[in-house]
Amino acid sequence: MSNYDKLDSYIDKNLDKSLEELKRYVSQPSISAQNLGLKECAAIVKEMLERRGFKAQVMATDGAPVVFGERKGKSDKTLLIYNHYDVQPPEPLELWESPPFEPQIRNGKMYGRGVSDDKSHLTSRLHAIDAILKNEGDLPCNIKFIVEGEEETSSVHLHGFIKENLALLKADACIWEFGGVDHRDKPMQYLGLRGICYVELSVTSLETDVHSGLGGSILPNAAWRLTWALASLKGVDERIRIPGFYDDVVPPSARDRELMDALPDVADEYKTRYGAKGFIKGLTGGTDLKMEEVFVPTCTICGLTSGYQGPGSKTVQPAFASAKVDFRLVPNQKPEDILKKLRAHLDAEGFSDVKIDFLGGEPAARTNPDDPFVKIVVDTAEEIYDAKMEIVPMIGGSGPSYPFVHDLGLPVVTMGLGYPDTKAHAPNENIRIDLYVQHAKHMVRVMKEFSK
Amino acid sequence: MSNYDKLDSYIDKNLDKSLEELKRYVSQPSISAQNLGLKECAAIVKEMLERRGFKAQVMATDGAPVVFGERKGKSDKTLLIYNHYDVQPPEPLELWESPPFEPQIRNGKMYGRGVSDDKSHLTSRLHAIDAILKNEGDLPCNIKFIVEGEEETSSVHLHGFIKENLALLKADACIWEFGGVDHRDKPMQYLGLRGICYVELSVTSLETDVHSGLGGSILPNAAWRLTWALASLKGVDERIRIPGFYDDVVPPSARDRELMDALPDVADEYKTRYGAKGFIKGLTGGTDLKMEEVFVPTCTICGLTSGYQGPGSKTVQPAFASAKVDFRLVPNQKPEDILKKLRAHLDAEGFSDVKIDFLGGEPAARTNPDDPFVKIVVDTAEEIYDAKMEIVPMIGGSGPSYPFVHDLGLPVVTMGLGYPDTKAHAPNENIRIDLYVQHAKHMVRVMKEFSK
Repeated sequence: MSNYDKLDSYIDKNLDKSLEELKRYVSQPSISAQNLGLKECAAIVKEMLERRGFKAQVMATDGAPVVFGERKGKSDKTLLIYNHYDVQPPEPLELWESPPFEPQIRNGKMYGRGVSDDKSHLTSRLHAIDAILKNEGDLPCNIKFIVEGEEETSSVHLHGFIKENLALLKADACIWEFGGVDHRDKPMQYLGLRGICYVELSVTSLETDVHSGLGGSILPNAAWRLTWALASLKGVDERIRIPGFYDDVVPPSARDRELMDALPDVADEYKTRYGAKGFIKGLTGGTDLKMEEVFVPTCTICGLTSGYQGPGSKTVQPAFASAKVDFRLVPNQKPEDILKKLRAHLDAEGFSDVKIDFLGGEPAARTNPDDPFVKIVVDTAEEIYDAKMEIVPMIGGSGPSYPFVHDLGLPVVTMGLGYPDTKAHAPNENIRIDLYVQHAKHMVRVMKEFSK
Repeated sequence: MSNYDKLDSYIDKNLDKSLEELKRYVSQPSISAQNLGLKECAAIVKEMLERRGFKAQVMATDGAPVVFGERKGKSDKTLLIYNHYDVQPPEPLELWESPPFEPQIRNGKMYGRGVSDDKSHLTSRLHAIDAILKNEGDLPCNIKFIVEGEEETSSVHLHGFIKENLALLKADACIWEFGGVDHRDKPMQYLGLRGICYVELSVTSLETDVHSGLGGSILPNAAWRLTWALASLKGVDERIRIPGFYDDVVPPSARDRELMDALPDVADEYKTRYGAKGFIKGLTGGTDLKMEEVFVPTCTICGLTSGYQGPGSKTVQPAFASAKVDFRLVPNQKPEDILKKLRAHLDAEGFSDVKIDFLGGEPAARTNPDDPFVKIVVDTAEEIYDAKMEIVPMIGGSGPSYPFVHDLGLPVVTMGLGYPDTKAHAPNENIRIDLYVQHAKHMVRVMKEFSK
């Protein structure tokens, strides 16, 4: 495929300029969980798109605005690219080696909050577009960008936005916000995302905290109420106890197991990376571990807070306690249904005092592994990565792919520059610059081959 | 008892001088939790004792020093008075109406950190001693003061200090650091303190937090492990499930119930003060509620912390989780024994991964309500307070009274100038000056009657 030489060479020679653009983008904090810097960041995205001749607009939602951009190309085909400009909160700050919003390059990596998830994905894609525009003057196909600002807080308004803008977003295929290589540097094709139902559970048992010498004996303790309510959701056997929780689960197919079986074992790698002594449910590795990782729905405590949390002891009984809990869903579970079942379960177990705040959700969605667009992305990867792209039928994480797959009817593929040590959502989030270049080169090929 | 006229009159006429001494004492910050001003404050106490002809010394411990002072009197009997010179941290500072360490008198009250707990208790007692010395030239009995500097941080070194100084501290009766009137202005005699065993339970399940889309499926979650371990300690029925936990509990006697029965009902007052809709265990009020408040040991979650606790959602699985838990103990439970049983229980339930940090403890201790010294204190109160002193056989809180009762073998009585709105441990801590005068007059009578 030596016909890509000029484009590849442009990508290599103009790398620094693209990284400068990424740095500016990462320098703008845009924390959706804290409603911080979102409008400012949306304006930066609009400007980046306009710089490439895209017709761009910042479109209001009931939450953070969506940036939409569109530029016509030579063929009639339309590629929709989905990204998000919001990032996770940077805390705990003390664990960062350089400030999260002052991106730094060290040893071939760039560090900063959101650099991997997913600001570099947008700028490397724009870098690929620049390569084509500078060398060929025009895009090979129509390109549409949809860049939202609430991905890290469950994309609460995206589904509604898509439903209201079906014509505007009409396309033939979709490239997802993320993708990347695994621990062997092999490119991966993730064809499905689990759904999610994220809630905050809270208890207010009194109007004020009370001395534990009194309260502990006779007054209701918010922390105990919350602890018992949580323990009623899932036991040490990891089975979720909410009646009907598993009712709509579609079990994995033989083809799913075949695809999972072809993937390398992950047990040792996870143990090393996370310092885990072992896995839950007595799992040790192999296909069973890989299947568990994606085809089984979960209930995870993401945070707990109540009462005194400082050094030493304080003899106080808390009046308030809360927990963040996420449920990862598989096809065909629905977040609204899980929410209803959770409320019914808590009431039935005597926990009507536990308040549920729904913080966001979306159902799972999958793309057919045998779709022709999947083949284009998989085939064009081989030249770049010197390795076959491996197909993963579904992954454990979630994202708002449901409306893309089910409302817009698109095959959704993943490609990108993620890698196992990228530390998304954690301190010292980073990208590898070699993968940044590879992703841009892969994008060039996908755009060109798709347009034929 | 008109033979107290001259002494009472001295107390009234020299009140301002005593309050000036209190002001100077309160002006010296002495925050044990922050190791701030302790030596300076111990020196002030030594000087105050020496001014009354006490032989005083500042005695080192492995923590804050103890001030010991002694002066001989006419009779052979010895009264030991226990106080502490340390105070709680003054934070939150913005809620104070006048600076915490610049004591001010407003509307018959003096405000300042530590003024009630318990610096005024020491100076009003010294004021009573002055009245006797100025009028009679000599004390009616031997008086010993033990004034420690770690009461607000669990008196960690006091028990050891007492064990090492049994001869020095030998006495016939002991007056406790606090005491006071209830919401009806009736003087109260609190004759027992519960014990305490304060622990931090923590779990480290991984070396780093992990994305909940991965961790939730296959890796151990510290927050879940802690939740399940806590739920194994106590269920919604409030019964503590640690095997052997109740083994050493001495049940309350018929006399205890009779004394509790004589006390006013607390149900409405607690509901109003804490905004409680009801009580635990189906309790509604009356003697059962009062008995539960003090004669049943507890297990209280004082704090919970794990993972993401900010606004909105963060999809992270925590690698670390911890809880502050206090057990209030009744006679004859021992903190070391409870700690051992807690460890054995967690291990037996499969929670060897839950670490226990012991943050402090002391056993419960009680004084016989029919002890002759109790009678002296109760009888002499009536003339001062125009009300009978009510006997509370034990209270829900804890304190270091065990070595006084069990190592020194003393009856320990409470008398003082606390009142419900004194705001100990809170902003705008204050004393009522009328109660300051009453306490000094009560002290004079107790010293004289005790010496007969």
